[in-house]
Amino acid sequence: MTRAVILLSGGLDSATVLALARAAGTECYALSVSYGQRHQAELNAAARIALAQGAREHRIMHVNLGRIGGSALTDPSIDVPTTPGEGIPVTYVPARNTIMLSLALAWAEVLKATEIHIGVNAVDYSGYPDCRPEFVAAFEQLARLATKAGVEGTPLSVRAPLMNLSKAQIVREGVRLGVDYSPTVSCYQADAQGRACGRCDSCRIRREGFVSAGVPDPTRYASLPGQSGEKIV
Amino acid sequence: MTRAVILLSGGLDSATVLALARAAGTECYALSVSYGQRHQAELNAAARIALAQGAREHRIMHVNLGRIGGSALTDPSIDVPTTPGEGIPVTYVPARNTIMLSLALAWAEVLKATEIHIGVNAVDYSGYPDCRPEFVAAFEQLARLATKAGVEGTPLSVRAPLMNLSKAQIVREGVRLGVDYSPTVSCYQADAQGRACGRCDSCRIRREGFVSAGVPDPTRYASLPGQSGEKIV
Repeated sequence: MTRAVILLSGGLDSATVLALARAAGTECYALSVSYGQRHQAELNAAARIALAQGAREHRIMHVNLGRIGGSALTDPSIDVPTTPGEGIPVTYVPARNTIMLSLALAWAEVLKATEIHIGVNAVDYSGYPDCRPEFVAAFEQLARLATKAGVEGTPLSVRAPLMNLSKAQIVREGVRLGVDYSPTVSCYQADAQGRACGRCDSCRIRREGFVSAGVPDPTRYASLPGQSGEKIV
Repeated sequence: MTRAVILLSGGLDSATVLALARAAGTECYALSVSYGQRHQAELNAAARIALAQGAREHRIMHVNLGRIGGSALTDPSIDVPTTPGEGIPVTYVPARNTIMLSLALAWAEVLKATEIHIGVNAVDYSGYPDCRPEFVAAFEQLARLATKAGVEGTPLSVRAPLMNLSKAQIVREGVRLGVDYSPTVSCYQADAQGRACGRCDSCRIRREGFVSAGVPDPTRYASLPGQSGEKIV
């Protein structure tokens, strides 16, 4: 049985990655990282998803990237934008995926897992450099050189099964596999109850994904200014 | 002026790396990582070294690798060996250098630093896979793909200036640059006062380095069984 560490953020994409791995019969160890993001709602969501989808174990590691800042997600003084801008947005967290993959690599090595799965995507995404196929390939190459397992001849594979899917395709794939997306949280600034703002880049891409897939959007949205609790879809 | 993030463990090697960078006129930001190692003495040493050698700033980041274990340095149930063994020793911490370089990468990106320096060494070392030149080259390649700076055309360099030096050469280089090695802690299991055990692999390599360099060993050793406080050099 293949054993894999699955990076599980609590969002839509990584929930789908876990479902795909489980459907392929993989023994899944889910890893979430508390890195100083704006809210804990996505970590609570990750715990629910790991349980619902039969991960063998779920661990949360902590690394305080707020100590470094440089992103709207880790520095409260930088606002999350609600209108699309030019270039790489301020929600980009420096080296976040490199750090998360490194932590997954450490756990994979201890578990003697042969795969790491990550839900990055280069179609409907925000232009982050560490979501591209060449980044994933470079990390896999690094992983093979960095570890005892690599030196001893059982190199790790780094899989990004959503890389070339649109958000709508990801949603359809998840629905096909029976994923319940209602607990997932994609919003950059969800409230304490995990309700989405409906306006940030991540909410916009997610909402459009459900619309394009023709799947009802189960996202719980917070009320918008001037509205009282109604959904904005 | 070149700006660099210097990984500073509090040991002999990284103290030398910082001295080399300062001698070259580099503006140095020292980063230490509290990863659940057996003692805090090396982090205290790092703070003293950063100050003594004129780092512009020193930060300590926390990531609890004890949550993952798999090493004598992060799992108290695994003893630190005091006799050399075969293969990669149990003091190897899975993915440690990958994780530390990733954290350095995050800070480098925020600082707009163009270099990361790490004190890894492939001559007098313990056979760890993540101390080899091919590992450092792979991380540099990854860093160029992972970051906004890389995408925008100012890629980072990852420097390992001690890679091909023997421990004795490192000591001589440091002495030439005026490094005071007395506060540095290399021991895997130093006591709360930072005194070295004198018996682990790291102590052995360090001690032999001073002897070969013909430099008096300033290491503070704890008393050994059957001895009372005397130095074991």
